[in-house]
Amino acid sequence: MKISGKHYRTIWPTPSGAVRVIDQSRLPFEFVTVDLESLEDAAHAIRHMTVRGAPLIGATAAYGIALALRQDPSDDCLESAARVLKATRPTAQNLAWALARMRRALAVVAPRERAEAAYREAGLICDADVEQCRCIGAHGMEIIRRLAETTGRRLNILTHCNAGWLACVDWGTALSPIYMAHDAGISIHVWVDETRPRNQGAALTAFELGAHGVPHTVIADNLGGHLMQRGRVDMVIVGSDRITAAGDVCNKVGTYLKALAARDNEVPFYVALPSSTIDWSISAGEAIPIEERSPTELTHVTGRSASGALETVRVVPETSSALNLGFDVTPAKLVTALITERGVCPASAAGLESLYSERRATA
Amino acid sequence: MKISGKHYRTIWPTPSGAVRVIDQSRLPFEFVTVDLESLEDAAHAIRHMTVRGAPLIGATAAYGIALALRQDPSDDCLESAARVLKATRPTAQNLAWALARMRRALAVVAPRERAEAAYREAGLICDADVEQCRCIGAHGMEIIRRLAETTGRRLNILTHCNAGWLACVDWGTALSPIYMAHDAGISIHVWVDETRPRNQGAALTAFELGAHGVPHTVIADNLGGHLMQRGRVDMVIVGSDRITAAGDVCNKVGTYLKALAARDNEVPFYVALPSSTIDWSISAGEAIPIEERSPTELTHVTGRSASGALETVRVVPETSSALNLGFDVTPAKLVTALITERGVCPASAAGLESLYSERRATA
Repeated sequence: MKISGKHYRTIWPTPSGAVRVIDQSRLPFEFVTVDLESLEDAAHAIRHMTVRGAPLIGATAAYGIALALRQDPSDDCLESAARVLKATRPTAQNLAWALARMRRALAVVAPRERAEAAYREAGLICDADVEQCRCIGAHGMEIIRRLAETTGRRLNILTHCNAGWLACVDWGTALSPIYMAHDAGISIHVWVDETRPRNQGAALTAFELGAHGVPHTVIADNLGGHLMQRGRVDMVIVGSDRITAAGDVCNKVGTYLKALAARDNEVPFYVALPSSTIDWSISAGEAIPIEERSPTELTHVTGRSASGALETVRVVPETSSALNLGFDVTPAKLVTALITERGVCPASAAGLESLYSERRATA
Repeated sequence: MKISGKHYRTIWPTPSGAVRVIDQSRLPFEFVTVDLESLEDAAHAIRHMTVRGAPLIGATAAYGIALALRQDPSDDCLESAARVLKATRPTAQNLAWALARMRRALAVVAPRERAEAAYREAGLICDADVEQCRCIGAHGMEIIRRLAETTGRRLNILTHCNAGWLACVDWGTALSPIYMAHDAGISIHVWVDETRPRNQGAALTAFELGAHGVPHTVIADNLGGHLMQRGRVDMVIVGSDRITAAGDVCNKVGTYLKALAARDNEVPFYVALPSSTIDWSISAGEAIPIEERSPTELTHVTGRSASGALETVRVVPETSSALNLGFDVTPAKLVTALITERGVCPASAAGLESLYSERRATA
């Protein structure tokens, strides 16, 4: 998507073999790119959320393998690099998926050709992600179009966290249908949950919607339920970090609360995801590990001070402890439908198998 | 309650006739008191949340009348002061209740005796609030005690916003049972919602629980649903800014989402309130006006910087708009019971009438 008229992806290799990413920890106030030169750089970028968003984490991990192999193309290095990268974020399914794909592709390549093959495979993962997100957008836009035709007025769509192009390589998952609907001239307005504690909504979703010209309003995570009660939300679309084979949706913490409010007010609740987000090995959402992150993400807030500099302030008393869990699980029964690159399906084992019948045998 | 071993109320008159309050906008990092000298000072303190919390707003408004009358004890001044104070916060029921009580008490007093009578009546309102909160605590503690006996382990109690002694004159509403249970040796731990956008949980509830020594952990507003799914919340207690005669509960925005999660996970959800919070004139929660406050409360966050000073940082892009509604309404059907100064009752017209039978005729 575009920033100030220039088209960007979130990750791309440089001619020197480094991997360039947008430093998302400094958005929305500073647009800066960072070059990852090594496995350690890639792992650090994922762990410290220089890059974030399930699909982009997967893409960065794939390039992390390439960065490791250009230093040491041995089998041992391939294995240990995959181990290091997998440990960076325990919840995101695309991370495991991308690493498995890289290992599968590279295991059969001779060490002296591995680095080049790894860059090529990582590039293919990125291209595939872009194409998948484009397809998600096209399928999701049809849902928006039908709803807009039914209501005959501007649609209000609520989203949580950032599942836009900044979370992917381009387009986004949850925001892809929104960009396509907006570009197609369908009148929409987006309620952006600020998404505490990391504020990905306020910082990233607001930034990218604004950069693309999509009307939007930032709200506290607490407000969505009230807006639904008052008929001010027509649909909800969120992304996912991992969904089970039965359709339980793990996503940024707080998603479950919005899904409950959507059901209570008969607001349709959609989850947009590429199939790499599906964990075919588990059915119950309770089996998904929930990442615990540093309490400082909750106790401290970073923003732009009056002087223009980025500053961090503490908002919780020094004597109080804090707990920061990054995700929750929305049971499939609360999800109206899943929007994938292959189309729209019910959030259920049968629904997913109707789109991914080849998985039935391997699951 | 106590701060550093010294007992405080949140509001008290000084010998010179000023009204002293704790500046709650500077907590938890600075403990400062402010003297209100005039009607304008009182209105400003309520509007800009130097004082907040439904019962304390009522008490401050009562003293605001006294401050106005010491300058001009006429009928006109009494009427216009009540109008000015009522307009400061549209949602809180105690504000209207306290002003009506002051006008009723003072209308029959000769102007030359009115100022003195107003201070006396405001003092009685404060004393009554303390006694009501003490009774709420005693009734609520019995619920906690029974639950603790059933589970046989430390109880985890979740609360939203600040309904502690800082929101009242002393004790608090939702926190009063917690203080009494803690003081009685019942093992409890409190999950404190940070309560965006004003962070009353992170700033005030965490501060006052910490000052009293109650174990607690601050969490993002987004996390409570997940904790309930995982069995880590035994009960929820919140306060209220206004409840209808049918038991619909208006409280800090986000309360409704927690009530939905509590129902979905069979966690008991209690609302603690003095009867001055009940609006006997309406049944449907939709009739309660929802205060819209400045978007800067959402777009900017104030905290303590590394240098130790209080600083304000912007967390939303300059080009994005924001909406800041202060309250939502939790339907009575989601409330396990109401805890009032007269006892515990179902959240329903019949439930409230069982405790306040004298209201049946006047409603």
